[in-house]
Amino acid sequence: MTRPLPKPHALAIHGGAGALPRARVPDERIEEMRRELGAALDLGARVLSRGGSALDAVVAAVSVLEDSPVFNAGRGAVLRRDGSARLDASVMHGDGRAGAVCLVRRAQNPVRLAHAVLLRGREVLLAGDGADELGEELGLVTQPPEYFITGHRREQLARLAERGRMELDHDVPAGGAADHPTLNVVPDPEQGQTVGAVALDTDGQLAAATSTGGMTNAELWRVGDSPIIGAGTWASNQTCAVSATGSGELFIRAAFAHEVHARIAWAGESLEVATRGGLDSVVRLGGQGGCVAIDREGRVAAPFTTLAMPRAYLHPTGERHVYVLELD
Amino acid sequence: MTRPLPKPHALAIHGGAGALPRARVPDERIEEMRRELGAALDLGARVLSRGGSALDAVVAAVSVLEDSPVFNAGRGAVLRRDGSARLDASVMHGDGRAGAVCLVRRAQNPVRLAHAVLLRGREVLLAGDGADELGEELGLVTQPPEYFITGHRREQLARLAERGRMELDHDVPAGGAADHPTLNVVPDPEQGQTVGAVALDTDGQLAAATSTGGMTNAELWRVGDSPIIGAGTWASNQTCAVSATGSGELFIRAAFAHEVHARIAWAGESLEVATRGGLDSVVRLGGQGGCVAIDREGRVAAPFTTLAMPRAYLHPTGERHVYVLELD
Repeated sequence: MTRPLPKPHALAIHGGAGALPRARVPDERIEEMRRELGAALDLGARVLSRGGSALDAVVAAVSVLEDSPVFNAGRGAVLRRDGSARLDASVMHGDGRAGAVCLVRRAQNPVRLAHAVLLRGREVLLAGDGADELGEELGLVTQPPEYFITGHRREQLARLAERGRMELDHDVPAGGAADHPTLNVVPDPEQGQTVGAVALDTDGQLAAATSTGGMTNAELWRVGDSPIIGAGTWASNQTCAVSATGSGELFIRAAFAHEVHARIAWAGESLEVATRGGLDSVVRLGGQGGCVAIDREGRVAAPFTTLAMPRAYLHPTGERHVYVLELD
Repeated sequence: MTRPLPKPHALAIHGGAGALPRARVPDERIEEMRRELGAALDLGARVLSRGGSALDAVVAAVSVLEDSPVFNAGRGAVLRRDGSARLDASVMHGDGRAGAVCLVRRAQNPVRLAHAVLLRGREVLLAGDGADELGEELGLVTQPPEYFITGHRREQLARLAERGRMELDHDVPAGGAADHPTLNVVPDPEQGQTVGAVALDTDGQLAAATSTGGMTNAELWRVGDSPIIGAGTWASNQTCAVSATGSGELFIRAAFAHEVHARIAWAGESLEVATRGGLDSVVRLGGQGGCVAIDREGRVAAPFTTLAMPRAYLHPTGERHVYVLELD
């Protein structure tokens, strides 16, 4: 008797589209990103190789990146105007279930809280204290506000506040460069670093998750695309799973993640063409960014329009890649 | 010399998909809905007939419905668990600009606040107190909490609280009937009443707006589809403008309003087919509801799966219709 071949599984993660100029970002920080991306990929891969679900794999992988201080999610999130961290996350299963939280302040892993919202199956999006209270009720790990705040992000905020205006965690103003021809945003050496993951499990199910701290020096009550199902995150077992990163407002205005799905579903585009087409509409609105996406065969696409997008893939062949500054 | 014919304009508004059983809703309330829908349609029509923008027309029309106590938006919104009103609204221009607010408590017209967010062009979605503070900074009219609360909604909340569980402002549980096979929701005589508008102006521009108080007895921090660009509201000058109403969580999980757009953009469907197809995907997830939508020629579609959806149309021909309980 021959055992059936294990069904293919695949995983892709990102650590945010942005700029990581070599001259201004220390090598150790680059290497830490590489290490953490590898650790997140390996944890997600372990879930999948044991027959776990794509949903559990993306939540596990994103949790690793949230716990790492080098990415803009969970611990090490960028800081708002008042020096606080307010966190957004969302998760979607290819069967159409979804959960999301925005502006939370206590959940150690906002993506686990979004996952809990999905599993509870009542609301899809919970905001602020209400979301945190649910996390406590459900016994998820919470942390005091100081936990999330790193010296690195404090300095980043101080630098930006000194320049006296809001700066995106990405390259362009929130409303799009076209809307603010006079707003001359000085690029920060470490923009980006929103995190996300997409996976295909051995059962043929897809899932996507995204987590962020938003943008440095942002309004306390600003919500970007990461917790918005259809903008920052989408998954459909018929087409693909997508996690986006970039100028959040423009990704909302392009309904980016759902647009990638729609191009595959209705125009028959490939994952590669659909993700690039989706990004083109963000660029036309004045935005920048990127995404990781995966289709039903485990093919991965990860286009970005910024200088860098740290990312890692596990292909169905078992091939494994981690990129930080490399183009591919 | 002959003057060129005035270019066509058109407008459609809704007062929410839900149930309005004749036996339990007083005639005066039905007639008040009819009157207010007519007033909202006429105000929006006046904006359009004077060459005003679709964006201004939908904001004007929705403001009338927010000011009216019979709809679930602005004054007369349904009440949350703690007896407070927390309001959501969004607006989108066919050129891709968008603005939205969720969980606001002071803006008399949440749709005007969403409009202000759009015009400012920085954030797309602002939540809670931050959104209200922006409204105050910009000089929009604010109201004390009591302004929004009507005796009618107090009684509605008391009835539902007595039944000891959350009830949607629509027919099904938030996560979808399929997810809660045992949750036997008793229909409320006045579910629904989220409001919205879509318009085509003489310049060929489209716009959509949606406003709601959410669902009776909801979690304080629950955000439904109305403030979510791509779920409750979408507009693209290439295709259509859409304002949705129904079981919010399912409209988010279907990316409903953007799905209608995508079916027209990528599959070449008509507005009628695309709106019904979009609603079908909400129904497949276990949801119910409806929408008003308008295309570039001013054609209107307004399908719904609930017992009633108060609505009104101004067609490009100048024909005017107001429906409350009538099917068409």
